[in-house]
Amino acid sequence: MPRLLVINPNSNTTVTANIDRALAPWRVTGVTIDCMTNDAGPDTISSDEDAQRAGRDVCAIAAKARADAILVACFSDPGVDMLRGQTARPVFGIQECAILTALARAPRYGIIALSERAVPRHRARIEKLGLTERFAGELGLSDYSALAVGQSDAAYAETRTAADRLRDLGAGAVVLGCAGFGPRRAALEADLGMPVIDPVLAGAAIAVGALLG
Amino acid sequence: MPRLLVINPNSNTTVTANIDRALAPWRVTGVTIDCMTNDAGPDTISSDEDAQRAGRDVCAIAAKARADAILVACFSDPGVDMLRGQTARPVFGIQECAILTALARAPRYGIIALSERAVPRHRARIEKLGLTERFAGELGLSDYSALAVGQSDAAYAETRTAADRLRDLGAGAVVLGCAGFGPRRAALEADLGMPVIDPVLAGAAIAVGALLG
Repeated sequence: MPRLLVINPNSNTTVTANIDRALAPWRVTGVTIDCMTNDAGPDTISSDEDAQRAGRDVCAIAAKARADAILVACFSDPGVDMLRGQTARPVFGIQECAILTALARAPRYGIIALSERAVPRHRARIEKLGLTERFAGELGLSDYSALAVGQSDAAYAETRTAADRLRDLGAGAVVLGCAGFGPRRAALEADLGMPVIDPVLAGAAIAVGALLG
Repeated sequence: MPRLLVINPNSNTTVTANIDRALAPWRVTGVTIDCMTNDAGPDTISSDEDAQRAGRDVCAIAAKARADAILVACFSDPGVDMLRGQTARPVFGIQECAILTALARAPRYGIIALSERAVPRHRARIEKLGLTERFAGELGLSDYSALAVGQSDAAYAETRTAADRLRDLGAGAVVLGCAGFGPRRAALEADLGMPVIDPVLAGAAIAVGALLG
């Protein structure tokens, strides 16, 4: 059966465990899904330098892995473009997959990031991907880690407020801008009454689809 | 368990049966997938008028259906925008989903249609979706039906030639512009050595993903 490698570019093993658990429904397809932690990475990826270093780590991990496709599970898509130049296997980034998925749900999408610092980095990727036309905006929370954003009630309250502001800006779907938001996705979608895209699940759907043919 | 309704907007039951069979790997996720034929539709959708009529039929079928999400399985996405205005359920079109999926596979995508007549209609949708920036081009075959394109060796030979021309135009992934191409997707991908996107499978991955949360 085909193997999908999901790489968590940060070193937080609880984040990896949450990703692993969230992907369980996709394992019944017969695709083997392995989740790996970047032990050399920072605890959370917050700066451009973090993302660049993690990107090199991602490439090193992928080079040694037995996998038919690779999903990079950090919203900055670290290493995705570099890795595509190094392997013929399909390589997916969760930011790219999440935005593409949001475009199938609403005329315009908005993004919520862990911090304002992440916004220009994500914006640069959106421009590189040519996906600006239906982009409503991106807002940053007050600097949470990938782990905390899925656990903290304060972060959840900020996320709700940000989602309401994105709706005011025209967003009909909200993209969660970190792999760590997962534990809060369903509650947020129910509270808001509009589609909320978990980037890891969006990436899994597209990656599993590619492996199923 | 959530239910996905897949509507074949044409009246050809063999096309519906092929779609139904191709979606089998997605049923193991627990999502119930029902495939329905538009008995009132034409045998294949080839003109703009065909697409407009089929779009109204699609809305009528969806209005009566017990389903949590709807996938419209004709590459012109007939009725998709109208239906989105009539229901709060997620509505997916296979053209939209196929292009979004191709964007996760290559810098630029190309499309192969059943006939040259379909090209302006598909192009209008790409422009409406704001997905022109990475569009390499679209080429039409010599007017096959949705059924024939999955069976005819002559159609396959033309498809290969068109794919080579799209590669010359810069496409790194080929999108098959009809729900009927499915039986030939895997062979074409192997022959070409580049990703070939079946729009029905692309739609299923995104729709099942939305239902799994």
